[in-house]
Amino acid sequence: MEETILRPFPNSRKVYTSGSLHPDIRVPFREITLTHTKLANGYEENPPVRVYDTTGPASEQGVAPDGTVTMHDVRQGLAPMRREWVIRRGDVEEYEGRHVRPEDNGYSNEDQLVRAFSKEKAKLEYFPGLKRKPFKAKIGGAVSQMYYAKRGIITPEMEFVAVRENNSVPVERASVRNSIFHQHQGNPYGAFIPKVITPEFVRDEVARGRAIIPSNINHPECEPMAIGRNFLVKINANIGNSAIASSIEEEVEKMLWAIRWGADTVMDLSTGKHIHETREWIIRNAPVPIGTVPIYQALEKVDGRAEELTWEIFRDTLIEQAEQGVDYFTIHAGVRLPFVPMTANRMTGIVSRGGSIMAKWCLSHHTESFLYTHFAEICEIMRAYDVSFSLGDGLRPGSIADANDEAQLAELRTLGELTKIAWDNDCQVMIEGPGHVPMQLIKENMELELRDCYEAPFYTLGPLTTDIAPGYDHITSAIGAAMIGWFGCAMLCYVTPKEHLGLPDKNDVREGVIAYKIAAHAADLAKGHPGAQLRDNALSKARFEFRWEDQFNLALDPERARSYHDETLPQEGAKTAHFCSMCGPHFCSMKITEDVRRYAAEQGVAEEEAIAAGMEDKSREFAAAGSELYTIPLDGVLE
Amino acid sequence: MEETILRPFPNSRKVYTSGSLHPDIRVPFREITLTHTKLANGYEENPPVRVYDTTGPASEQGVAPDGTVTMHDVRQGLAPMRREWVIRRGDVEEYEGRHVRPEDNGYSNEDQLVRAFSKEKAKLEYFPGLKRKPFKAKIGGAVSQMYYAKRGIITPEMEFVAVRENNSVPVERASVRNSIFHQHQGNPYGAFIPKVITPEFVRDEVARGRAIIPSNINHPECEPMAIGRNFLVKINANIGNSAIASSIEEEVEKMLWAIRWGADTVMDLSTGKHIHETREWIIRNAPVPIGTVPIYQALEKVDGRAEELTWEIFRDTLIEQAEQGVDYFTIHAGVRLPFVPMTANRMTGIVSRGGSIMAKWCLSHHTESFLYTHFAEICEIMRAYDVSFSLGDGLRPGSIADANDEAQLAELRTLGELTKIAWDNDCQVMIEGPGHVPMQLIKENMELELRDCYEAPFYTLGPLTTDIAPGYDHITSAIGAAMIGWFGCAMLCYVTPKEHLGLPDKNDVREGVIAYKIAAHAADLAKGHPGAQLRDNALSKARFEFRWEDQFNLALDPERARSYHDETLPQEGAKTAHFCSMCGPHFCSMKITEDVRRYAAEQGVAEEEAIAAGMEDKSREFAAAGSELYTIPLDGVLE
Repeated sequence: MEETILRPFPNSRKVYTSGSLHPDIRVPFREITLTHTKLANGYEENPPVRVYDTTGPASEQGVAPDGTVTMHDVRQGLAPMRREWVIRRGDVEEYEGRHVRPEDNGYSNEDQLVRAFSKEKAKLEYFPGLKRKPFKAKIGGAVSQMYYAKRGIITPEMEFVAVRENNSVPVERASVRNSIFHQHQGNPYGAFIPKVITPEFVRDEVARGRAIIPSNINHPECEPMAIGRNFLVKINANIGNSAIASSIEEEVEKMLWAIRWGADTVMDLSTGKHIHETREWIIRNAPVPIGTVPIYQALEKVDGRAEELTWEIFRDTLIEQAEQGVDYFTIHAGVRLPFVPMTANRMTGIVSRGGSIMAKWCLSHHTESFLYTHFAEICEIMRAYDVSFSLGDGLRPGSIADANDEAQLAELRTLGELTKIAWDNDCQVMIEGPGHVPMQLIKENMELELRDCYEAPFYTLGPLTTDIAPGYDHITSAIGAAMIGWFGCAMLCYVTPKEHLGLPDKNDVREGVIAYKIAAHAADLAKGHPGAQLRDNALSKARFEFRWEDQFNLALDPERARSYHDETLPQEGAKTAHFCSMCGPHFCSMKITEDVRRYAAEQGVAEEEAIAAGMEDKSREFAAAGSELYTIPLDGVLE
Repeated sequence: MEETILRPFPNSRKVYTSGSLHPDIRVPFREITLTHTKLANGYEENPPVRVYDTTGPASEQGVAPDGTVTMHDVRQGLAPMRREWVIRRGDVEEYEGRHVRPEDNGYSNEDQLVRAFSKEKAKLEYFPGLKRKPFKAKIGGAVSQMYYAKRGIITPEMEFVAVRENNSVPVERASVRNSIFHQHQGNPYGAFIPKVITPEFVRDEVARGRAIIPSNINHPECEPMAIGRNFLVKINANIGNSAIASSIEEEVEKMLWAIRWGADTVMDLSTGKHIHETREWIIRNAPVPIGTVPIYQALEKVDGRAEELTWEIFRDTLIEQAEQGVDYFTIHAGVRLPFVPMTANRMTGIVSRGGSIMAKWCLSHHTESFLYTHFAEICEIMRAYDVSFSLGDGLRPGSIADANDEAQLAELRTLGELTKIAWDNDCQVMIEGPGHVPMQLIKENMELELRDCYEAPFYTLGPLTTDIAPGYDHITSAIGAAMIGWFGCAMLCYVTPKEHLGLPDKNDVREGVIAYKIAAHAADLAKGHPGAQLRDNALSKARFEFRWEDQFNLALDPERARSYHDETLPQEGAKTAHFCSMCGPHFCSMKITEDVRRYAAEQGVAEEEAIAAGMEDKSREFAAAGSELYTIPLDGVLE
């Protein structure tokens, strides 16, 4: 594995906070240490800034007794942190589990599989770290977070989420309890009035279906997180090999790379060979929820012939993946036969892979989708493992021209129907959304989702706000993503610069994740999420005071910020210089502001304000007198 | 000059449209030729797409009699296209003009200057191409576009703009006259109902002050363009050397590079030495309006000591630059003494360079700003050359925390006062705006500007919607720019990835311009500007039909789109392949949609819709009956 993937961020350390209801939970944060501000007469301390941390235990380097630094070993995977919590609830049973079959990895028999694994030995290997059997709910039961939430139980997962969501609230203030539904304060750094998310609030949101905590009981490595519009806006990164390119190793690296930059969940969209084994490596190393689109693997099992799909093959795939620990499944159960012809006159037809597979199946059999007709049985599987639904928008628009059309909205209403059924089964649900939407239609999209899907969390791909910039669709879509996040979208699926053109490489994953962290954070600011502005203010203050290192370290991408600065002014001294490379030493506006402050301090701001107020009056007087600007002896007013 | 700067875009040719009122105007467009669509039973033609073209005559390569391709010669500059129009109006006089002085280039005497020019001969040279004396209005007159507009005169500049704004409306439809204030159609490609911008509409907007056409009579090389909220949203790119880096040659290249990617205007923000000569080279090669901040040069003339600035030095600088042909001046006349103390308690004080210079001057002299007290005299200069005002927001916020505060809004009201005075002098005006604004405050910013500045065009820097992503501020700000463009902002000043960190290089200019073309175009789409969606639709159709080359060629950055595609699938054949690199040949959703269309065609869509409607009824029935999903024999409905 490349060294860069686990490299710690500068001036950062990992800190943990425990719970009060569940003292054994350890909620991770990254704490960024800041330098102090030099004042004329001494120093001002700048408190460290805690940020939400998606990197998991792998980012914590151990030190062995002999002093050597130990790195995370992807062959071992992560520790099963949640396993004890699951066992403690007493409602699951361990069982033998489904036998992994050659077709799970895309081979028709054992011989073929063995030959392939021996031929490509360097690249293919069964994951060596798992020594567990799968869990499932005791017969007929539900083990979902929603099930517990509805019964008033605050799980360790819920408390974990509550602590985690309060990331930026300084610890000494975190005891103040308050509603999340508060006015945006917009107060400067230091004057922030915290509102705290409580475990009970998390429970209530999950019980209402307004938030989900994707947490398959077979993914105990996962650190709980919430997706819901009254929480921080989350982002998802897609990875996955395909028929064209990529290896297992690359995909594991991409997952770790995506969470390094801040991905809250990761979807493994692998197709082609070795889907099962790729997923195993990913899940065992993932501290974030992993999502998949099971129909992709089911299609591989019938050699890509959509019409040969059956409910039995799909069901078997769900169980296969649920046993591995996938946390949410995209299921395109809203692509119903009667909606398919609605797409015939579209500019860009059906662009969702899952949607088009199901449309083809429906047409071939001239019958209703088996995902729709077997939905209750799907719910039974989901709740037995606590796999969350991500109800897929198979008929989402593929272009600006097709946005918010009848096919999309008909499917959305169906997703609402299915949400109710899933909730009746205590299944957690989120709703997938578009795609390609011009700005003036984004709000309508969000509002229709909230209405038709009863406030289930919305999870959109972008949306792209124009189609004319292939190569830059992380930007066309970050615009739409920020807006829909503000309007209430709970999770934003990233788009990389390669969208529509090719497979993202490592750098594209970074570009996509950062663009989406920006969109999500801009939305958090606009929503007035408690603590969102703290990091902005800390960075603004560092910038203004020429604490260059602090400015880099507080950035979403400290490495890039530093390297861009160094391109113009590489010397170490320039990082303590009281001017910027843009203006040079003579011309610095921030330097001049210091004079303003000194002046205001000398004169006394209060006194100065009184004079200013007097001048304002004068100013209004002469404006009222017809703006005869130059007849009043303005110069004399302050003399 | 690097060959890439003038490299023609693929499958594109330059075309010109003439006017009806002024037959001698030649309005340039870039016409992108498309391939045809293969149908089962033949071909469908895809009409060429015309796009707005900012590149000017330099992008048109001549062919000499001997067959060699002739390139634009930056030592000659561009042809003075508008010179005849200016002369024809009969209201200007040619005169000797101000003698260029050593201090104009940052030297205190001739000897120093001569030594510098001979020492750095390779980099420094007087522009050899200009053989003209400057024009100015005959004594006391105004030669501004607003002056003519108010008197009912439609100038060639106005008709040029009208033709140019209708870029995407197919010629045969361009005769339909209609108001600009129309509903967004959202119709697919081909069903677009054009609304046409007429020369009279342009005149009316300029007369009301709702739009400006920056067009100094001494910049005859400039192709007229409009900045106003009822026109296409424009973008500006900043270039300029500084005390730290950059040469004249680099700056001319950056200007040509910026307009290659679509910058509508360019601001030369040079500081340090050789400001005058850098500007001369830029203006003589610029087919777009050039803006400057004259206080920067004035400050150089007093060796960076703000307190030594005088009205006389500033006035002399205005005339120097007006004679060269600068099209708009940023003037921070709203930074008034009483507002300065309002910034003392800000998170980031004053961050505008011009604003901080004037604040320092006001404090040093304890008196009102000379820009404010001499504003009427400034107007006299502006109207004599038709230099447009860009009233600077010297007190704009420098951080999210300071957005929309009292200092900013007090200054904005003053800019409104000054707008009225400028209009009384027939001067064209736009208003500069922030900067750093969280999403929820953007709309308020726009609304206050329209109210307090009487609908004068707004011209904002970004705004950045969060401060936590230095290195990616082209993205943090493209989000805000797209939104404020939609809300009515007329021009968006780009931000590059180097903002806050260093000086943009060529690649940063490209990244910044493309991010802002995206923002502006997304805003045009959302506003429903006539023809904005045509390019999206053409690209979407090409994408859906796997016309890869057309998809690249229609992109804002064809070179990047192609290279990203080729990273995954470099073979030539892959550019005609009926699948994408993301999904591979088996799994293509677009391929499946073709089946859907065939099916719909076979069955007849009408018939299918009838069946669908029937099924929808059934669906509602069973939903009403309590969503007992699986008791109704859905499979049988279509049998």
